[in-house]
Amino acid sequence: MAEDYRSMWADLGLDLGAHDALLAVLGQAYQDIYMSQKDRPEGMGYFDFVMSEVHGLRIKELVDEKAAGRKIIGSYCVFVPEEIILAANATLVGLCSGADFAMEDVEKLLPRNTCALIKSSFGFKIGKVCPYLESADMIVGENTCDGKKKAYESLKDLVKNLYVMDLPQVKSQNGKALLKAEYLCFKDAVEHLTGIPVTGESLKQAIRTVNAKRAAVHRLSVLRNADPAPVSGLDALLVNQVFFYDNPARFTESVNKICDELERRIELKKGVFPEKTPRILVSGCPQAVPNWKLPMIVEGAGAVIVGEESCVGERGTRNLTDESGETVDDMLDAIVDRYFEIDCAIFTPNPDRLEHIREMVAAYNADGVIHYGLQFCQPYLMESMPVEKALEDMEIPCLRIETDYSMEDVGQLKTRVEAFIEQLR
Amino acid sequence: MAEDYRSMWADLGLDLGAHDALLAVLGQAYQDIYMSQKDRPEGMGYFDFVMSEVHGLRIKELVDEKAAGRKIIGSYCVFVPEEIILAANATLVGLCSGADFAMEDVEKLLPRNTCALIKSSFGFKIGKVCPYLESADMIVGENTCDGKKKAYESLKDLVKNLYVMDLPQVKSQNGKALLKAEYLCFKDAVEHLTGIPVTGESLKQAIRTVNAKRAAVHRLSVLRNADPAPVSGLDALLVNQVFFYDNPARFTESVNKICDELERRIELKKGVFPEKTPRILVSGCPQAVPNWKLPMIVEGAGAVIVGEESCVGERGTRNLTDESGETVDDMLDAIVDRYFEIDCAIFTPNPDRLEHIREMVAAYNADGVIHYGLQFCQPYLMESMPVEKALEDMEIPCLRIETDYSMEDVGQLKTRVEAFIEQLR
Repeated sequence: MAEDYRSMWADLGLDLGAHDALLAVLGQAYQDIYMSQKDRPEGMGYFDFVMSEVHGLRIKELVDEKAAGRKIIGSYCVFVPEEIILAANATLVGLCSGADFAMEDVEKLLPRNTCALIKSSFGFKIGKVCPYLESADMIVGENTCDGKKKAYESLKDLVKNLYVMDLPQVKSQNGKALLKAEYLCFKDAVEHLTGIPVTGESLKQAIRTVNAKRAAVHRLSVLRNADPAPVSGLDALLVNQVFFYDNPARFTESVNKICDELERRIELKKGVFPEKTPRILVSGCPQAVPNWKLPMIVEGAGAVIVGEESCVGERGTRNLTDESGETVDDMLDAIVDRYFEIDCAIFTPNPDRLEHIREMVAAYNADGVIHYGLQFCQPYLMESMPVEKALEDMEIPCLRIETDYSMEDVGQLKTRVEAFIEQLR
Repeated sequence: MAEDYRSMWADLGLDLGAHDALLAVLGQAYQDIYMSQKDRPEGMGYFDFVMSEVHGLRIKELVDEKAAGRKIIGSYCVFVPEEIILAANATLVGLCSGADFAMEDVEKLLPRNTCALIKSSFGFKIGKVCPYLESADMIVGENTCDGKKKAYESLKDLVKNLYVMDLPQVKSQNGKALLKAEYLCFKDAVEHLTGIPVTGESLKQAIRTVNAKRAAVHRLSVLRNADPAPVSGLDALLVNQVFFYDNPARFTESVNKICDELERRIELKKGVFPEKTPRILVSGCPQAVPNWKLPMIVEGAGAVIVGEESCVGERGTRNLTDESGETVDDMLDAIVDRYFEIDCAIFTPNPDRLEHIREMVAAYNADGVIHYGLQFCQPYLMESMPVEKALEDMEIPCLRIETDYSMEDVGQLKTRVEAFIEQLR
């Protein structure tokens, strides 16, 4: 990244030394894991550029937006409705974090037995290395799992302007009413922050913008059903990760461009792996940048990942919002309907998720499922056991893994993943 | 226990061999931990008898009630309103379990990183050794922590008639409305089970019965503020544990009898430990029968426990329900008000709990607090870190421990507890 971002980073309050170290590690990992791949679609060049400028140009854009009076809102979860944020003239950026940082200090505030994702979010704040977090005018937490819910009680002392949204645990009428009430409060809070009311017109446009983004990602997902697979799981995951950071319109255009290219590839039967390569669906916890550990292992072991049943994946992008409403209230109802469909493991029971895994296995011709669980993530780890059993009853092979962000278990995971892939051949 | 319970246990479907083994271990532990104490109040004789007949006479009573047409309802949580159950002519028994059983089979259904309490509840079912569970006509689960919430999804395949109650996560108007809606549904379910409607009269009587039980325990709590302490923490914990099993009226009478005796002891300055013994408040996770590990270590190390800020303790018994309502709806509102005050760590934020710890330290003249966390209990473990910090800011010494039901860490815990007590002298 260009040298002239340093004063911007310093102005945001980053620890420049620590941040340099982070960027060096991130850059090297990207080179080793991404740039070493063969036969990548040309359209991935855009995402290589985005990643090379992830703390540079994109942050410069946010800082420029702020200078022009626009507000930046950071979130850790796919339940935070981007439609409302855009409609009130603010920008949403994802703050989920995928790397260990400042762990010694983090473990003074959070129990060691906390999942890597939550620890990472604290580490990036304490270490002062996340320019997205430091740019944000509002940070939105949400009562999903116990880990996040209780962690926000401590995070509020570390950041300014933390807004916590309650969420239901059951898909009942009461649960839906709670989600609507919380989205109404959130709309008020965002309007208060930006000073710009959500109108029928602005909300309709925002719904269209977000739908277009999700539709583009879904178009990409569907193309992955081809054999040979036209794009690697690593690259597709990256697209799903950048979904949370990029300018929505530009992101949509870039994804559609890749899709055009993949369609040509499929016609030519050109792929990133040979035909008949074992095909894996990954299901479970989110994989945030730069957490590329699992696809690196799986695709390094000679299989290809053809789908992510995950928040960073189809759980977050599957459903579109109905665009036909004319009033703000109609459209808010449509937004509530859309988000209430998310099959997060915080819901009890959560039968839709198993059905979605089954559908994705069929749609993308997967040979098996790897259930990706972050250690100490109770909702997904607990759900993984009945999910594994149900998949096995359907004769869909399943491997449950439980891991964190460290590299200590890579050797052991490789052995297990290789054995699993061997069984699929 | 008398031999003639064996056919009753067999009829309930217990595994008699495994159950014999459990009773033998339980009996020996009770001898070693309880009967070896010196200068116990005579009134504890009742509780020794209750414990010696915990799977015998009390189960016989429940079986007799069932034969007479009364229904038995089992619960795992202090949010299940006993008032409603009694008012519909049913009996509530606690099912929380405090010992490891059938762990190998349990870990086929639940992740290893699940708290001991949840694993134990599964172990007692899978091992067929809990006559309370097997007597129950309805088992009530509740959406408290992620661990329990998700575990009930699997428990429903192991037991018949599991009823799951949703709970709020936030103490807002919406949260209270959800609790009321859930209690109304629960009332309907209990009435449906018993065929007996809750009336104004029966509900008022039930509120009085439960209030009397809680008031008796609270009377006992207050007497523990004397120095020397008139009763051990072990014995007081046992009273709090039996609270969940016993016939309410008989329990109330027995506790009040002990209180009369403790008042005489206090007048005579007679105690179970010498004056100026270091005094400990235990705060955190519930300690269910036969989980006597922590008080055994603490009192074995020469301190005395003077209070339990816990579900099996004041969190469950602190508040009484207003008795003045005349209609069922008025009284249900009073019940909702009462239970909504419970300062469980599932709520976010949960500032009342810190205030209650501080109040209890003052009321019972505690010299320090031991925070008791079950390993992998995210809500209490996460809350323990800000709680410890806040207590230290108030110059109240605090020791955080994290443990399970095994005896493997007893040596290590002893060392840490002894060092902590030394610092209080």
